[in-house]
Amino acid sequence: MKKMNKIWQKATDNDSLVDQFTVGQDRELDLVLARFDVLGSMAHITMLESVGLLTSSELEALLDGLKTILSEIEDNNFTIDDGVEDVHSQVEGLLTARLGNVGKKIHSGRSRNDQVLVDLKLYFRHEIYEIFSDVELLFNQLISLADQHKAKLMPGYTHLQLAMPSSFGLWFGAYAESLLDDMEMMLAAWRVCNKNPLGSAAGYGSSFPLNRKMTTELLGFEDLNYNVVYAQMGRGKTERILAQAMGSIAQTLAKMSMDVTLFLNQHFSFISFPDHLTTGSSIMPHKKNPDVFELIRARCNQLSGLSNNIQMVTQNLPSGYHRDLQQIKEMLFPAIGELKSCLKMMHYMLENITVKEGLLTEDKFKYLFSVEEVNRLVLSGIPFREAYVQVGLAIEKGEFNPERQVKHSHEGSIGNLCLPEIENAFQQLKSDFGFEKVEEALKTLAEK
Amino acid sequence: MKKMNKIWQKATDNDSLVDQFTVGQDRELDLVLARFDVLGSMAHITMLESVGLLTSSELEALLDGLKTILSEIEDNNFTIDDGVEDVHSQVEGLLTARLGNVGKKIHSGRSRNDQVLVDLKLYFRHEIYEIFSDVELLFNQLISLADQHKAKLMPGYTHLQLAMPSSFGLWFGAYAESLLDDMEMMLAAWRVCNKNPLGSAAGYGSSFPLNRKMTTELLGFEDLNYNVVYAQMGRGKTERILAQAMGSIAQTLAKMSMDVTLFLNQHFSFISFPDHLTTGSSIMPHKKNPDVFELIRARCNQLSGLSNNIQMVTQNLPSGYHRDLQQIKEMLFPAIGELKSCLKMMHYMLENITVKEGLLTEDKFKYLFSVEEVNRLVLSGIPFREAYVQVGLAIEKGEFNPERQVKHSHEGSIGNLCLPEIENAFQQLKSDFGFEKVEEALKTLAEK
Amino acid sequence: MKKMNKIWQKATDNDSLVDQFTVGQDRELDLVLARFDVLGSMAHITMLESVGLLTSSELEALLDGLKTILSEIEDNNFTIDDGVEDVHSQVEGLLTARLGNVGKKIHSGRSRNDQVLVDLKLYFRHEIYEIFSDVELLFNQLISLADQHKAKLMPGYTHLQLAMPSSFGLWFGAYAESLLDDMEMMLAAWRVCNKNPLGSAAGYGSSFPLNRKMTTELLGFEDLNYNVVYAQMGRGKTERILAQAMGSIAQTLAKMSMDVTLFLNQHFSFISFPDHLTTGSSIMPHKKNPDVFELIRARCNQLSGLSNNIQMVTQNLPSGYHRDLQQIKEMLFPAIGELKSCLKMMHYMLENITVKEGLLTEDKFKYLFSVEEVNRLVLSGIPFREAYVQVGLAIEKGEFNPERQVKHSHEGSIGNLCLPEIENAFQQLKSDFGFEKVEEALKTLAEK
Amino acid sequence: MKKMNKIWQKATDNDSLVDQFTVGQDRELDLVLARFDVLGSMAHITMLESVGLLTSSELEALLDGLKTILSEIEDNNFTIDDGVEDVHSQVEGLLTARLGNVGKKIHSGRSRNDQVLVDLKLYFRHEIYEIFSDVELLFNQLISLADQHKAKLMPGYTHLQLAMPSSFGLWFGAYAESLLDDMEMMLAAWRVCNKNPLGSAAGYGSSFPLNRKMTTELLGFEDLNYNVVYAQMGRGKTERILAQAMGSIAQTLAKMSMDVTLFLNQHFSFISFPDHLTTGSSIMPHKKNPDVFELIRARCNQLSGLSNNIQMVTQNLPSGYHRDLQQIKEMLFPAIGELKSCLKMMHYMLENITVKEGLLTEDKFKYLFSVEEVNRLVLSGIPFREAYVQVGLAIEKGEFNPERQVKHSHEGSIGNLCLPEIENAFQQLKSDFGFEKVEEALKTLAEK
Repeated sequence: MKKMNKIWQKATDNDSLVDQFTVGQDRELDLVLARFDVLGSMAHITMLESVGLLTSSELEALLDGLKTILSEIEDNNFTIDDGVEDVHSQVEGLLTARLGNVGKKIHSGRSRNDQVLVDLKLYFRHEIYEIFSDVELLFNQLISLADQHKAKLMPGYTHLQLAMPSSFGLWFGAYAESLLDDMEMMLAAWRVCNKNPLGSAAGYGSSFPLNRKMTTELLGFEDLNYNVVYAQMGRGKTERILAQAMGSIAQTLAKMSMDVTLFLNQHFSFISFPDHLTTGSSIMPHKKNPDVFELIRARCNQLSGLSNNIQMVTQNLPSGYHRDLQQIKEMLFPAIGELKSCLKMMHYMLENITVKEGLLTEDKFKYLFSVEEVNRLVLSGIPFREAYVQVGLAIEKGEFNPERQVKHSHEGSIGNLCLPEIENAFQQLKSDFGFEKVEEALKTLAEK
Repeated sequence: MKKMNKIWQKATDNDSLVDQFTVGQDRELDLVLARFDVLGSMAHITMLESVGLLTSSELEALLDGLKTILSEIEDNNFTIDDGVEDVHSQVEGLLTARLGNVGKKIHSGRSRNDQVLVDLKLYFRHEIYEIFSDVELLFNQLISLADQHKAKLMPGYTHLQLAMPSSFGLWFGAYAESLLDDMEMMLAAWRVCNKNPLGSAAGYGSSFPLNRKMTTELLGFEDLNYNVVYAQMGRGKTERILAQAMGSIAQTLAKMSMDVTLFLNQHFSFISFPDHLTTGSSIMPHKKNPDVFELIRARCNQLSGLSNNIQMVTQNLPSGYHRDLQQIKEMLFPAIGELKSCLKMMHYMLENITVKEGLLTEDKFKYLFSVEEVNRLVLSGIPFREAYVQVGLAIEKGEFNPERQVKHSHEGSIGNLCLPEIENAFQQLKSDFGFEKVEEALKTLAEK
Repeated sequence: MKKMNKIWQKATDNDSLVDQFTVGQDRELDLVLARFDVLGSMAHITMLESVGLLTSSELEALLDGLKTILSEIEDNNFTIDDGVEDVHSQVEGLLTARLGNVGKKIHSGRSRNDQVLVDLKLYFRHEIYEIFSDVELLFNQLISLADQHKAKLMPGYTHLQLAMPSSFGLWFGAYAESLLDDMEMMLAAWRVCNKNPLGSAAGYGSSFPLNRKMTTELLGFEDLNYNVVYAQMGRGKTERILAQAMGSIAQTLAKMSMDVTLFLNQHFSFISFPDHLTTGSSIMPHKKNPDVFELIRARCNQLSGLSNNIQMVTQNLPSGYHRDLQQIKEMLFPAIGELKSCLKMMHYMLENITVKEGLLTEDKFKYLFSVEEVNRLVLSGIPFREAYVQVGLAIEKGEFNPERQVKHSHEGSIGNLCLPEIENAFQQLKSDFGFEKVEEALKTLAEK
Repeated sequence: MKKMNKIWQKATDNDSLVDQFTVGQDRELDLVLARFDVLGSMAHITMLESVGLLTSSELEALLDGLKTILSEIEDNNFTIDDGVEDVHSQVEGLLTARLGNVGKKIHSGRSRNDQVLVDLKLYFRHEIYEIFSDVELLFNQLISLADQHKAKLMPGYTHLQLAMPSSFGLWFGAYAESLLDDMEMMLAAWRVCNKNPLGSAAGYGSSFPLNRKMTTELLGFEDLNYNVVYAQMGRGKTERILAQAMGSIAQTLAKMSMDVTLFLNQHFSFISFPDHLTTGSSIMPHKKNPDVFELIRARCNQLSGLSNNIQMVTQNLPSGYHRDLQQIKEMLFPAIGELKSCLKMMHYMLENITVKEGLLTEDKFKYLFSVEEVNRLVLSGIPFREAYVQVGLAIEKGEFNPERQVKHSHEGSIGNLCLPEIENAFQQLKSDFGFEKVEEALKTLAEK
């Protein structure tokens, strides 16, 4: 067979092959860390000065230099130069080029290991905030859709068989509440991320008299990863936990997408979307292919395998740093972007959803009301057993013509969706994150 | 080939084959749910009476009957009879046999679905408490071992290469702190479990005027799963989240076991265990096979694949109950037992660990101290660059003879393990669970 | 909280706790290995005698003793006594009790490691044969159902949207052909299992002059695992490969079950089963819950996660035996039984399937024929573009009334299912296994 | 918190957001399919002409046009234009731009679905050939290293404990034989890929009188995917099987990398590499970080989770095409490149490996020989039991001084590695693929 062009591997000689192999996609992936690398350095040097490892004029020069880089990053004027291995080298290199040897002092009392650890935690914290914001938007939309469609009945299924009356209010509301529970997981991920690993050096600490509590405060962390061996051990584990929290959201989106593809199927036809949001064909006018939902489903399902993948890589590695951990970035970073785009896309699609009214008036749905009818009789005083037989007989004789209404009143039922309670729980949970405290700290630090 | 005896499948005719196939291991697995099924029913009927669906004398009779069953369960006098499908039927059957038709009334306003849901949540809550207790025992032991061995140095590795001085204090302490972060995940699982699904019926609510807040209080739940569709959707998801929290603990145990097997290897020989806790051979006196740790590792590694397995089963199922969800019990219930036995076994083994002293005095370990030496010079006033060159030259000339001491003082380092801070964080986290409140509620309920 | 009864863990003191922990479920699981353990020993001692490590009278006595045990196993008169660790000890113990010290000689030139390895491979080979037989039964049934229902049209979906005409012949036939490809994977598993590891001792060979080719022939293996280190390395890997082949079958069954639950849904109603094979309710006459298919789906989906679980345990273990490998038995052995029972249950259910006729005559299905109609015009000489516009216009005007027939003639299409070709390929593949050769060898050996 | 720059998502309005979301990375990934898309079209139109659906002059023009595009692809002059969705549209667009409307006729009697299916199978077949070639190179190297180092003893471990003498010959040879078994899996993947899906259209066949056997021969396929529904069902499944075969190779590389990182650890020091292939530090002269092997391990471990990921996406999808399947390309295509680069990198590193001689002469290794010693006595006529006691006593008294030699002679042991047998088995297996036949067919087709 003829050799194809190499797509993923272009190195021409073995030395560059080794370089390329070990760098992987680091230079590209690291760009998202740039801002956090600078902030981490600002906190670190501020602390170094306080324990006498930098002079105050050195600190001032370095802070100025870092602030310049920070604004370059924010203005999209920052790149990692060819031949520079990663973002940390780029920042240190820029600083040294501009300030001379003092630039190298940002590395005192630190190792590349804890520098990466703190960058990752700052980055993850930021992304959790962004994901939370996207989730909140979708949550609010679902609550509002639930309220808007609360009076519209739809069939409820068990075993994928027609079972009982449900409503679009229940359906939308269920996914809102699912996101609420997903945020419980995300809160755990946040709490694990929100501990400071800086100062753990290569995983065994430093003989310099570092003040780790100070950097903890400067960077707005809630607490420290105290034990330096554990600080290092947290790599891989933090990512796995974050991936599991992301996977939980992803499962909510994927399940809803599965429902949507089913409800769009012509045998159901419960919902619809404008033509430009589905794909079709002029000679197959019945086709409304829900490509967007299929891809949300696929990407979210892929996402929910992410934590397994991370475990595949970290499984059975003894304690201490291993280069293997670098590989996790290549799995996790793009996945964060994927999740955010799926959240946004779901939101955009739901802005355009149309829900069918009067669904349960069709004759084929009348048996959905048989339990309702039995209960109605029971509540009117007839013993259950008798009511049951009575309804059963009516059905058998073909004389069953139930009232097509449901009068559920208990918490969380069709007639009482408890949307304010669910919203309230969401806001309560949001406040447990304490995003403002973090924002405040980083803002103060950036303006030092 | 000759047909073998069927081990897992003994049915002789097709009808019983179908029965056996659908029941699976339910009858056996359900035993652990018995106590919770009774408590759930006690809460349910107390509520039914309060909304007029039971008379007070019916309630009294039923509560008495259920309390009798409860004490039978606690005295190990409860089994699921042959031919009875599951624990719920057994309890209802016993009650009806003893009290007559009123026994059936415990099922009013409930479906098998929400009965199972609440049983599972009560059971998981209980098991989380038990797991937490086992974790706490191990955590305290690790803190105490860290303190006991804080002065004993050992090598620290990066890339599995000798890197820097570490200590047994750091090593034990790291795994204690790892359990702390694992409990962040377990807290999320607890919070997801600690919401009441009772009253969601078959996933679409009920026309009876149930008071779900009342059962929520009676059963000591923190809040409700409000939306009845979501209450049902929580099945599979709750289990996945619990499995992930369990997997996090499992990964801590597995990693520590990996370290132990490595440190027991003759080339390391950092630690040892009494002969009766390892396996060997009289003609291979060097062999101290760490079977227990290998099995902890294997079982914990298997455990950390559990959430993936649960997802394999639930993936892409549309909303609403599916019988598939029953299968999750067969994966999760035994895994809970496995995790608890691994926790206990790890604790038992660590009670017997011996740590080698004076490890770093051997010549082969002297280069571990080169960074220490550079830092020592820097702290004495020599510029870093010069200090670095000086140490490098000494090494090159074979004249490097470092002081074999480490004087780390910052938070979480060899000289300052911050064990009280870590213990404090653990206790704080424990109080977030609120186990007492749950215990109190269930005790009150059981004594009704 | 009150302590519950321990279900999975009953040990009362720590020593027995350790024993129980390390033995796990071995004694129970090992029963299926008994027959193969005896056969492996018969081959081994026959070889030992041939290289002078046993006398011919010792061989005769041992063969007689093993044959007695073999018939006890086949008569279900074999158990593993309390206090005996595993099947290998039980067999050796029985032999020694009956024959005296010569009984221990079956262990000469062997280690427990290669004894387990060969037992597992013999067992897996046997189970592959059994699985293949169950698959063949189902395959033949599907071919026959495809033939029987080849003239019955049904809708074909893409994106879960109505798309084109399909047929029940195609639907049944597709799953038959899916099993064919699954057997390609199973053949790979068979070929990996069908190599002899006996003689590799503890993974580093033996100083005895073993004749491994001889045991290879006696046990009907196709070839050897030559390298003794690799023979040991095959453990875990062989199981993973077998699990993947099993998972492939499982995915076929799970997908078909998903189709079945969908086609049984009232909006589809394409197929049906007798009432006693579904579950329902007298007041919900519409409900035909497909519990059996839901459980086939769930168990098969669980099965398709098995190889991932095995990897979780074996990942990153260095070469050489580790006790971790024992744990794989607890995952794999029951899964083999599950797969066979799912295959049998699927077969039983399909014996009772009823297929709806005349489905596509309903008006809602007419657009399925639009592509047919365009093609019909093209084949009659009208250019494609023109034909397309013509059909499009007819549809737009509501004048589209297609012939509800499909005249597909090419290979694998509705009118030409190629069932004989698929059957032929299946039989060809079956012959690649060479089951008879293995059976012949084992029969000869057992009669030695 | 401040919003970061979006890295993976740059769309500015919602419409392009939808487009971008649905296209995903298709345009980039599809480039590798270009050559196969053209070849598939050449086979398809040749068949169309033979059944009268194209005139011979149309065929000639189209073949010329496609050959031009083929040479542009081979000269790297082919790209997918902005605004063109995928490779298939690009090829058809080019053809139409150059030849006029006849260009569109390459699509007659085909759907995008079977076009993608056949492209993928042709691509996978090609990649299997490339992977096989890389594996063969590594296999031959390992065989050669095994031969070269067959006399050099090293310790063998069980339970990671020193156990028995092994050799570098055994160690290298074991990984060669591991690749042999991996190729059994790859053969299954090849056989599944080597069946023609072309002609299945959208998964329900076509009313055109296609000759699928003809395209099967033209494209060098071994057989057809007969059933058109199954042909479509093969998508996702084919990829899963290929991923499992790739994962098997990956596990071999990962395990060897784990061994290497262990053997490079200073406590082992069994092997070494030139300085420029490890990373270190001038003040930590002991450090030889094996980054390349850590990354091979990490990437291969990630790879062995790939089939699980694919299952996550395809799990529980009913039969028929779903857009979800597109997502698999994003997981699988880059993984193929990763595997090939890991194979090449392993080969490059092993070209530079140095093995330590005389390892087992050190005193600490003498107990490795105790079993050897017992066996030596047994072979000299002393009963096993007596020999065992004798050696045990010598060890106890500190008088055990074994000959440090091993005289293993049986198949696959230190003294008889059976390398020619293993090589022979590899070549036999290679011939089962039949690469030449495929190459011949494609060459003939490309020159039509």
